[in-house]
Amino acid sequence: MCVSMGYPGKIAQKLEQAGIAVGDTIKLTSTGKQYCGVLMPHNDFSSEDIITLKLDSGYNIGIEFKERSTLELLEKGMLSEETKRDIKDDADKPTVAIIGTGGTIASYVDYRTGAVHPALSAEDLAYSLPELAEMANIRATVLCSIFSEDMTGSHWQALAEEIAKELNGGAAGVIIPHGTDTLGYTSAALSFMLRNLSGPVILVGAQRSSDRPSSDAPLNLLSSVGVAINSDLGEVAVLMHEKTSDSGVAIHRGTRVRKMHTSARDAFISINQEPLGVIKDGSIGFKQSYNKKGKGPVEVNIKLEKRVALLYSYPGIRPEHLDILAQTNKGIVLAGTGLGHVPQGLVDSVKKAVSSGVYVVMTSQCLYGRVNMNVYSRGRDLLTAGVISGEDMLPETALVKLMWVLGRTDKPQEVRELMDRNIAGEISERRYLLKKMVDTQ
Amino acid sequence: MCVSMGYPGKIAQKLEQAGIAVGDTIKLTSTGKQYCGVLMPHNDFSSEDIITLKLDSGYNIGIEFKERSTLELLEKGMLSEETKRDIKDDADKPTVAIIGTGGTIASYVDYRTGAVHPALSAEDLAYSLPELAEMANIRATVLCSIFSEDMTGSHWQALAEEIAKELNGGAAGVIIPHGTDTLGYTSAALSFMLRNLSGPVILVGAQRSSDRPSSDAPLNLLSSVGVAINSDLGEVAVLMHEKTSDSGVAIHRGTRVRKMHTSARDAFISINQEPLGVIKDGSIGFKQSYNKKGKGPVEVNIKLEKRVALLYSYPGIRPEHLDILAQTNKGIVLAGTGLGHVPQGLVDSVKKAVSSGVYVVMTSQCLYGRVNMNVYSRGRDLLTAGVISGEDMLPETALVKLMWVLGRTDKPQEVRELMDRNIAGEISERRYLLKKMVDTQ
Repeated sequence: MCVSMGYPGKIAQKLEQAGIAVGDTIKLTSTGKQYCGVLMPHNDFSSEDIITLKLDSGYNIGIEFKERSTLELLEKGMLSEETKRDIKDDADKPTVAIIGTGGTIASYVDYRTGAVHPALSAEDLAYSLPELAEMANIRATVLCSIFSEDMTGSHWQALAEEIAKELNGGAAGVIIPHGTDTLGYTSAALSFMLRNLSGPVILVGAQRSSDRPSSDAPLNLLSSVGVAINSDLGEVAVLMHEKTSDSGVAIHRGTRVRKMHTSARDAFISINQEPLGVIKDGSIGFKQSYNKKGKGPVEVNIKLEKRVALLYSYPGIRPEHLDILAQTNKGIVLAGTGLGHVPQGLVDSVKKAVSSGVYVVMTSQCLYGRVNMNVYSRGRDLLTAGVISGEDMLPETALVKLMWVLGRTDKPQEVRELMDRNIAGEISERRYLLKKMVDTQ
Repeated sequence: MCVSMGYPGKIAQKLEQAGIAVGDTIKLTSTGKQYCGVLMPHNDFSSEDIITLKLDSGYNIGIEFKERSTLELLEKGMLSEETKRDIKDDADKPTVAIIGTGGTIASYVDYRTGAVHPALSAEDLAYSLPELAEMANIRATVLCSIFSEDMTGSHWQALAEEIAKELNGGAAGVIIPHGTDTLGYTSAALSFMLRNLSGPVILVGAQRSSDRPSSDAPLNLLSSVGVAINSDLGEVAVLMHEKTSDSGVAIHRGTRVRKMHTSARDAFISINQEPLGVIKDGSIGFKQSYNKKGKGPVEVNIKLEKRVALLYSYPGIRPEHLDILAQTNKGIVLAGTGLGHVPQGLVDSVKKAVSSGVYVVMTSQCLYGRVNMNVYSRGRDLLTAGVISGEDMLPETALVKLMWVLGRTDKPQEVRELMDRNIAGEISERRYLLKKMVDTQ
């Protein structure tokens, strides 16, 4: 669970001394200033010394609790369901499904007056971002509430089935608030698992939680609902801030996007392809061609081979590292150097792995550009050893794709053919790239 | 060896039929055009169907050999040492040492009339880039001639000793032509190994070999000599094209640079720091502060612990993967997700590894930004388990640094202290980054 009620350490002690619980209206005095508001649950995404209050304005504020700060109870809160507001569906509005998974973005919708449990509900959302309920009927469910680094293939599978159910049940689009750490892996997985989409499937995250004035959660979430109801997108996309400012939100293709910064709001970048589009001032501008939504029904292919590993090459890497992975996996994605290389000593291990029936796919740790194993003799040796080229796929996308492909077939010819084929926008046509290379000469 | 005399397959056969050897002057007719020139050795970096000729102008040209292309011998070449030019040292000029290691850049200087063996010599260089000899006395040696993906800690050690010898022997600067695949790893290693530099140590590569009109080799190499003789830089730096055009060459700090594109000429990027400077139209402009060269002598610390592994985290990674690495290594660098996270299931393995005396360092696969394990509870669990923060170091630089630190000491407190300390510009002061983050809020 991402949001725990209890504050850690020193603050917990002070709260107890003052007889204060989450949901109570309190007065906090810190560095000479007074703040009155409802005490919110502590957010695991906040620093340990931050107290979050919901002000009368409805906004949350995070206040640093210092050595000399004091707390005073003004009014006990109502820790009950009664605080929930009753929002009725409007038949004239489209329905948007929101499937919660956890992450920083969820901390926004989890903050509400008096309600202690962090479950995501339509009412929670409406209360925290009233604009949402004005735009659409919100149908919110919680699939899980975990740190995204704990997402696994099983979560992707459950998510894909839930999305299909929502779209086939009439939702105009589906929004998945998700932790940013592995957002790109999940978006790639859903891109392969879902076919024939009848509406946009949008993963959205936040790099700054809502107790900070700089939170990117509201804009990202509102933009997601905008794309869900006002676009003809029929793909899995990731919506995140385009720049560090609030100037726009980029729409990234699910198989092309990568978290490229640990903390900045514009951390998500489309690699080897421009973003599909940008939302500025509420209007959606597409810049790339994309799959249009169809009539459905949505098809789901969730089978995965989970015994697939990702191995990053580096100077001094020992062949045994690869040998051991080959013993317990059906597939290995290498993040080689440059155009797709590994040290000489690993070539034999690759050969052994391939002969024992393990599929080895080559990508590049450069991230940008295309693997090309025909240029240098090391690459040619690897091709001879049976390595499959990952073309211009991200290592992470190649990992997910190989899991998905091996879930469908174990016939060598079919595996090769599927890995080589562009299934969900993950591979660019070679011709285009070659043309670009010639142009720049 | 990177450059082999023999052309592969079909072309070799045609050459034999026409009685042509490398060094001969020939006429090549291809798609209606005729080319006359001296046949150069085949370059492993070229496609198999490319024939390289040195034209009268002195330039090399790569011509595609097609089905209907024909070859004609015009004049037998002189395969002897006699073709070498005798260049005398000029006492008024500074001396620059060039230590060859191989790679695409070396293919430039390896091309010369009549000379078959690919060894890098001062004469080779002078002949292929006459400007070099005008700028400085060139003292060229070859340490190795390998694909850079085969570089290991032993090569770094030999290189560091050779560099120190050259600088302490009076060279104004040292230039190391190097394959681009692992150039960033080598530059990081040399940055830690060499102290008290009396001149610039410059690694230089090329993304396009000299048989292509778009080669970046000449400009990169000339700029390197420029920096070696005309700057007061006392650091290990990487010089590569700043943009895809020939507009400038960037000077990257050795611990901050990463190959970020498989093939583009502007593939090298300084991460989490702007480049130290740029060379435009022959003039050097520094934009960052840097260590100035001193009087020497250069100190060398080449000891390395080679049992250090790099492990990239991904959804579904199994704890055994880490367990096995911990059994055979003294150090493990994790490329975690986001601010420095791994799946829950790995935390116990980290704990076990640390208790058994293995040093575990956390970096981020985001590449940009700083690891911060105090923000989320997973990070705090990892800190409790004994993980050392890699701050804003690149995963590759952290790997090299941990090898170097463990080569110096195995005392836990000292290892931590050294990993945490900025030794060669690899870590930015936290204060600066925090300030920037606050500014953008």
